[in-house]
Amino acid sequence: MGVVELTIAFHTIFNSPIDKVVWDVSHQSYTHKILTGRKEAWLDPKHYDDVSGYTAPEESPHDYFNIGHTSTSIALATGMASARDLQGKSGNVMAVIGDGSLSGGLALEGLNIAATLKSNLIILVNDNGMAIAKDHGGLYEGLKELRETNGQSSHNLFKAMGLDYRYVENGNDIQTMLNAFREIKDIDHPIVLHVHTEKGHGYQPAIDHKEAFHWHVPFDLATGKTLHPTTGETYNDVIHMELEKEITENNTPITAITAAIPGSYDLKRFSQKYPERYFDVGIAEQESISFAAGQAKQGLRPIVFHSGTFLQRAYDQLSHDLGINKLPVTIMVSGGSISAGDPTHQGIFDIAMLSNIPGLTYLAPTTKEELTAMMHWALHQNVGPVAIRVPSNGVHTATLNNFNAHKMNILHQGKQVAILGVGSLLPLAQTVQQQLVSKNIDATIVDPRDISELDSETLTDLEQDHQLVITLEEASLSGGFGEKVSRFYGNTAVHVLNFGAAKRFNDRETTAELWREFKLTPEQIVSEVMTNLK
Amino acid sequence: MGVVELTIAFHTIFNSPIDKVVWDVSHQSYTHKILTGRKEAWLDPKHYDDVSGYTAPEESPHDYFNIGHTSTSIALATGMASARDLQGKSGNVMAVIGDGSLSGGLALEGLNIAATLKSNLIILVNDNGMAIAKDHGGLYEGLKELRETNGQSSHNLFKAMGLDYRYVENGNDIQTMLNAFREIKDIDHPIVLHVHTEKGHGYQPAIDHKEAFHWHVPFDLATGKTLHPTTGETYNDVIHMELEKEITENNTPITAITAAIPGSYDLKRFSQKYPERYFDVGIAEQESISFAAGQAKQGLRPIVFHSGTFLQRAYDQLSHDLGINKLPVTIMVSGGSISAGDPTHQGIFDIAMLSNIPGLTYLAPTTKEELTAMMHWALHQNVGPVAIRVPSNGVHTATLNNFNAHKMNILHQGKQVAILGVGSLLPLAQTVQQQLVSKNIDATIVDPRDISELDSETLTDLEQDHQLVITLEEASLSGGFGEKVSRFYGNTAVHVLNFGAAKRFNDRETTAELWREFKLTPEQIVSEVMTNLK
Repeated sequence: MGVVELTIAFHTIFNSPIDKVVWDVSHQSYTHKILTGRKEAWLDPKHYDDVSGYTAPEESPHDYFNIGHTSTSIALATGMASARDLQGKSGNVMAVIGDGSLSGGLALEGLNIAATLKSNLIILVNDNGMAIAKDHGGLYEGLKELRETNGQSSHNLFKAMGLDYRYVENGNDIQTMLNAFREIKDIDHPIVLHVHTEKGHGYQPAIDHKEAFHWHVPFDLATGKTLHPTTGETYNDVIHMELEKEITENNTPITAITAAIPGSYDLKRFSQKYPERYFDVGIAEQESISFAAGQAKQGLRPIVFHSGTFLQRAYDQLSHDLGINKLPVTIMVSGGSISAGDPTHQGIFDIAMLSNIPGLTYLAPTTKEELTAMMHWALHQNVGPVAIRVPSNGVHTATLNNFNAHKMNILHQGKQVAILGVGSLLPLAQTVQQQLVSKNIDATIVDPRDISELDSETLTDLEQDHQLVITLEEASLSGGFGEKVSRFYGNTAVHVLNFGAAKRFNDRETTAELWREFKLTPEQIVSEVMTNLK
Repeated sequence: MGVVELTIAFHTIFNSPIDKVVWDVSHQSYTHKILTGRKEAWLDPKHYDDVSGYTAPEESPHDYFNIGHTSTSIALATGMASARDLQGKSGNVMAVIGDGSLSGGLALEGLNIAATLKSNLIILVNDNGMAIAKDHGGLYEGLKELRETNGQSSHNLFKAMGLDYRYVENGNDIQTMLNAFREIKDIDHPIVLHVHTEKGHGYQPAIDHKEAFHWHVPFDLATGKTLHPTTGETYNDVIHMELEKEITENNTPITAITAAIPGSYDLKRFSQKYPERYFDVGIAEQESISFAAGQAKQGLRPIVFHSGTFLQRAYDQLSHDLGINKLPVTIMVSGGSISAGDPTHQGIFDIAMLSNIPGLTYLAPTTKEELTAMMHWALHQNVGPVAIRVPSNGVHTATLNNFNAHKMNILHQGKQVAILGVGSLLPLAQTVQQQLVSKNIDATIVDPRDISELDSETLTDLEQDHQLVITLEEASLSGGFGEKVSRFYGNTAVHVLNFGAAKRFNDRETTAELWREFKLTPEQIVSEVMTNLK
């Protein structure tokens, strides 16, 4: 909402797509989409699904990239501007980045390189004083001083990075933005235009509840109240209960760390009760992991709360800072599901990312009892980092006996066929098992638990009585758990079938379509089993 | 060499390990090691191998992390300082970071969070005006101004990030450093101590040739001349010949991009001839990939030159910016070998990292002809990003017929056993094949070429006449190429054996030891084949 006026001003003054604008994260591009031929997607219910929630080159020549992660716009714009110069072309290149995204390392790397360009590049910093949640970090003190001094403070990150700089106070005033753009259009060097806007501008409930309205399920327009609030126990409840228990009963020196997504894990409950143990490092996934490494080295038990797709930013830190150093940091990973959504927010690549890092244990709980036991184990072992894949399905419950994180759990001992159901797909394994009973097959059901290292003892045992092992994982198969099982049995008589997602970026297919396409319905799996037993 | 004096001063004024120093990259920790009980490793040839080239907690309580990648020290120190406070402990925490490492996003994320701490944290910026090569970026203009104004310039990145700041001009003067440290010891808030030093201080050849002496093979102490210069053709020669040909014969709009490691690919030859096409973004791996994405979107054909281990920093950009956006960026990946070295610099995790990203093609050439053909193909296709694994063995040559990047190349059609030799291990496949001839086995030899997507047609063909398929890759098996082949044949009669590195961080074992341990000698492979054919 804060960018409506500056977007209108941009398309008034500049000549898109000769002049190009790259929207950071790009979920603030709706006004831009409306002004570039896509207004029906907001006006006509028949066209609601025509456009994505992010910029999309396949929709319009005014969009350049599919973008859904933060802090990329400046870097992308530096590349575009340098290409324009090398090709002898003209036109403005502008990156529009929110203040919250500025704390991401890539944005800062981009600022540093932007200053080396010798030609047109406009970096519009849309400063509403908020990331998804509150901004975190020293640079925001500087931005605040700049806002309070009409851009005159000497604590100026952009000038310190070698960039020209202008400040605009009334970013939600169209005339102001028209003038600001007129002045810098066709400027011959990189410049930062620091624009002060209001998050949620024009809609009072969004202004009053900025974090809640960053992303929202359907709500009543007049009051801002959620129309269909969720009820019942969630895995977040389970997680918070375990955190509480570790502090009050076990005196475990835990801390909770997030990189700007406290809402995903409802961390407000924790931060209000234990403010000294709570750390939001802002949009800075790399820092979140290395910061946790530092705490763990000193004897604390940090837990970092992440979503699988954003955690990709910290791949090197997971390996270099945690894996090599064997530091007991616990990482909660959410979003691991095959479901409708944009390609930039797919939660199916976490297993390939995490399960192949030496020294990092990746666990997939199937019930709340297992989730609790895995957190407890992770917080009291001294072997190394442990990531836990929070199940994407509803809360399941089952009595837990003899928990061993590295030992596969046989829920039902059958023969002929063994079904290994990873985390959220254990219920699917159980359904398949039941359907196979009617075909006179008594299949074994296994909960693998540790999806980064195979329990070779259990797998070897299965070899005796089973001719077919099938694996089910709610993730991309490429580089995942099933392939490890295939390798294990590669030189044996046991046949293996891996079920999971194809290696691709799904793009707003429905969840049902995806599951059918990937042969993840019970009927399809049963059919495959029957075909391959013959 | 530039940190000798400040290290001596640190250990004079501070009380290590109560007071803690985290060395960025940590290859500048030699003086620190000498002063903390490890001097014999420099004085006595018998002890040369006792210590690693980086800080190592297993060597000394004065070291806290195994560190070999840049830009981590501030983030690690923020975690350590916050833990100290939460635990009610005392002691100084200091990060020592070179100016070159400051351009890395993680260092900047760390500065931003450092400013939020309310207690002791000292960030010593060791400013010698150099990264491995020349510094790149706007922030270095600011640092230069600070050096030239004795710290008084208003273009101060650290103050803009909300940090206290002091400047020290003579960082190679012990008395100066003693005084500087005395003044800030036990300071009650985060502070940046910006120290001006000289790279190579005290050794004229290193001062005169700063980049060449960042890392050096054995040389004559008096002259600085290399003792055993390498001769003969290298894969860098092959790469440069192809770059030249693309520009002069094909008029391909290529650019060459590096993140501070021009020396690894000898890019000086290119930058001197084509300065307008050459971009060193400094230590900023994320920027290097997103910058290339921007250039590719505009129609250029960027080639990014990386080492596999440092490329880990750009994992999200490879997926989000390149993979989703299907941008034709070419990435050269070096260092892919199972060889002696430190755990932080292992080149065996690139296949698991790159081959599981949708839309990204990872190619493994086996000869200079194939490397040339793959570069040419990558630079003229429009499907998406292509990474090329520069072989780690010496230059091989073989006539190339009917090149198809996605088609496996059958070099010898045999039967019973098929050997798939990835890139640098094709010669090993050939040796094994020859040794099998004496056992009356006529094995098929296959060069897989594309190690990210399987050529299912060829693999299906192999099913007819082969009972055992073996894969050889000079990389970690976990998440790699071999597992994909195992999955492919999982539900067939074909048996599969994957040969490659174990999933672990190797740590200075000799290359010969590693190859024997991983069963990668021809004799071991032949023996495994014979055992498993019975």
